[in-house]
Amino acid sequence: MDEKIIDVEEVMALLEERKFAELRDLLKEANPIDVAQLLGEVPEEKLLLLYRMLPKEDAADIFAEMEHEEQETLIRAFNDREIQEVIAEMYIDDAVDLVEEMPAIVVNKILRHADPETRKEINELLKYPEDSAGSVMTTEYMSLKSDMTVADAFERIRRTADEKEDIYTCYVIDPFRKLQGTVSLKEMFLVPKDTLIEDLMETNIISANTLDDQEQVAKDMAKYNLTTIPIVDQENRLVGIVTVDDAIDVIQEENTEDIEMMAAITPTDKPYISTGFFETYKKRIPWLLLLMISATFTGAIITRYESALGRYVILTAYIPMLMDTGGNAGSQASVSIIRGLSLDEIEFKDIFRIQGKEILVALLCGATLALANFTKLLIFDKVSVVIAAVVCSTLLLTVVVAKFVGCSLPILAKRVGFDPAVMASPFITTIVDAISLIIYFQLASHILSI
Amino acid sequence: MDEKIIDVEEVMALLEERKFAELRDLLKEANPIDVAQLLGEVPEEKLLLLYRMLPKEDAADIFAEMEHEEQETLIRAFNDREIQEVIAEMYIDDAVDLVEEMPAIVVNKILRHADPETRKEINELLKYPEDSAGSVMTTEYMSLKSDMTVADAFERIRRTADEKEDIYTCYVIDPFRKLQGTVSLKEMFLVPKDTLIEDLMETNIISANTLDDQEQVAKDMAKYNLTTIPIVDQENRLVGIVTVDDAIDVIQEENTEDIEMMAAITPTDKPYISTGFFETYKKRIPWLLLLMISATFTGAIITRYESALGRYVILTAYIPMLMDTGGNAGSQASVSIIRGLSLDEIEFKDIFRIQGKEILVALLCGATLALANFTKLLIFDKVSVVIAAVVCSTLLLTVVVAKFVGCSLPILAKRVGFDPAVMASPFITTIVDAISLIIYFQLASHILSI
Repeated sequence: MDEKIIDVEEVMALLEERKFAELRDLLKEANPIDVAQLLGEVPEEKLLLLYRMLPKEDAADIFAEMEHEEQETLIRAFNDREIQEVIAEMYIDDAVDLVEEMPAIVVNKILRHADPETRKEINELLKYPEDSAGSVMTTEYMSLKSDMTVADAFERIRRTADEKEDIYTCYVIDPFRKLQGTVSLKEMFLVPKDTLIEDLMETNIISANTLDDQEQVAKDMAKYNLTTIPIVDQENRLVGIVTVDDAIDVIQEENTEDIEMMAAITPTDKPYISTGFFETYKKRIPWLLLLMISATFTGAIITRYESALGRYVILTAYIPMLMDTGGNAGSQASVSIIRGLSLDEIEFKDIFRIQGKEILVALLCGATLALANFTKLLIFDKVSVVIAAVVCSTLLLTVVVAKFVGCSLPILAKRVGFDPAVMASPFITTIVDAISLIIYFQLASHILSI
Repeated sequence: MDEKIIDVEEVMALLEERKFAELRDLLKEANPIDVAQLLGEVPEEKLLLLYRMLPKEDAADIFAEMEHEEQETLIRAFNDREIQEVIAEMYIDDAVDLVEEMPAIVVNKILRHADPETRKEINELLKYPEDSAGSVMTTEYMSLKSDMTVADAFERIRRTADEKEDIYTCYVIDPFRKLQGTVSLKEMFLVPKDTLIEDLMETNIISANTLDDQEQVAKDMAKYNLTTIPIVDQENRLVGIVTVDDAIDVIQEENTEDIEMMAAITPTDKPYISTGFFETYKKRIPWLLLLMISATFTGAIITRYESALGRYVILTAYIPMLMDTGGNAGSQASVSIIRGLSLDEIEFKDIFRIQGKEILVALLCGATLALANFTKLLIFDKVSVVIAAVVCSTLLLTVVVAKFVGCSLPILAKRVGFDPAVMASPFITTIVDAISLIIYFQLASHILSI
């Protein structure tokens, strides 16, 4: 990376020495995103002072990129003119994000100072459900009419581009705002200026509905390599666009959510580092409790075979190895499937093919592990061949069961409408533990006749 | 989604009935990405026939989006003219991807038919290490000179846009190809046409080096909301750009890789569904073996306390619950930290703060679980208060140790240069199992005096 990263200590030193001109230059040169990050690291009482030193044309951009905590501090401290300016300059989708996160008193202050048009738009956008396409879209897109020429379009773009979040894909709408087609600025550059937009536009449009899941919208943008996607209402009227930078954020959030669910944590969209310990506790304890209760069934199985275990205590020594291996083998399968489902690579109709493959893989893995373990049991642990046979047969069967359960449950969960990510390591482990112990004791009681 | 998804059965029916005109129209109307997907589902012997029905202007795009298997089939079947056309029309980065994946004989056929300029560029790009910025960049960017006016720039764009992968961010270079600045097409639209590019360009540029890790480049693009990023060589000469669609692919691949490593699978960039069973076996067995061997230490601990267990077989019944809860508590912490590290939200300097928070969370979780379990042990299992105390104290301590180990190991792994994702559930579980059993038996032997 080439650009100059702005350093918090340098900034504080310049502030201390009252070298304001130098500080202004430094802030002007830096990237707005880096400045926003910097403002998260300075003491709260210096925040307003530094904000007032920002170049006017960057201030709103920088504000939009800041963390909610600092945004709130600033809004509480802003005078009327400052709040008007920042709301007027921000893109509508960023303003909506802001309003969604602030406490009521701050929201009131924001809406009171927004101009009526902006206030109306913010209120409209606030109505869309969380995680819907409508909630992440912006209304600042470039619209054209089909009877315009490319020259007309260029003129319109020139006049209005400043307030648009994206101008590189233009949306052609009819008088009822129905979406008729899309045309890229690049295509307009390549044709004579008197070409009609209707002759140039692409009419096979990939679009999404305001109520569609934002994750699906982001995935479609990735699939079709789009930098913007049009969002239409139930009557196919264009109401906004989602831009690729927001789509990337959605993809990352959904990945985090999947990963958290796989580790038995209730997902949150707050970064770990800024989540308080009590909130973290609340995200984790329900799952730990649930899984602990499930694990007591495993204990009950052991209790049932207590007398047998009393006679062959050696069998106890291999319980952890069997449980862990089963858990690991199962979670390898389940996590592969969960990821495949999430990337739309796997569908329900693939279930038998996948089960077949997993059983083959399991037989190979199980045989390898059983062989390695058999050798170890005889040579190092010096147990009898019968005991070794019980342990290693259990191992093989456990791996087969684990991989079969591990690959099947996520697909079935998705089929009945649950998030497959729940069917990851912790749940699979709990289920496989119980099954493997039953296999173990059944084999032991038959082979050792206990 | 609004567009018409093309249906494989409809296509095959039209082919069967020899309704070629209708079929051509259908293929023309459909989105190239959907057509590429369709061609992956038709019988191999129909592939070339269908390819030849594609509209000329879309054929190369569709080809670039196809799976490697179908690409190989087609290239083997192509005549000279077809292969020349497709290579000439493809973007350079797609051609490089293709060459990287094909067997030598197919590569020869491709390079023999590429024009000398393209062949040279492909060969240049092939030299960059896998996963480097150089290996994902394209050389088809729009370059400008600083002494051009906006009118000159527009003229140049109009003349050359057709062969550029992106024209919306233009790169200003000096006669030695050193990168001087960037200017967006939008900015050019907003100023008088006689404005000099050097007065308009942004000189504080975010760029990456050809040898930078592609993951870092993709993360920077996401952080700074870029749709393209310039890639420079060691002398700061512009050699290419990475576009946002490729950055999204990199982000998704890296997420898959992290998730696979967390589940103790050797990462691969091949989708699960198209990986053969033997390959899947090879990605999983080393980790299962390694973890199985580690788990035998846990067995050894049990063996050491065998006589004690013989007298208190009831203690065995709680081993699975203790092991599972420890594993789950530890992986909640480790996975949160691994994700935070991967999103650059957590740094090494945060380690003490994180450990403090995790210990607090662990005490709360541990106390809740211990209390729930104590009640259950006395009421349902009807064990003695002493046994319940041993089990529940172990539970509390295990949760604390698990969360402490779980949050620390990923940070330390990253510090010494390992991928923190390895320190997820399977490894944490194995370590925590051993520690929790030692705690269990130590407490038991002191409290029960065995």
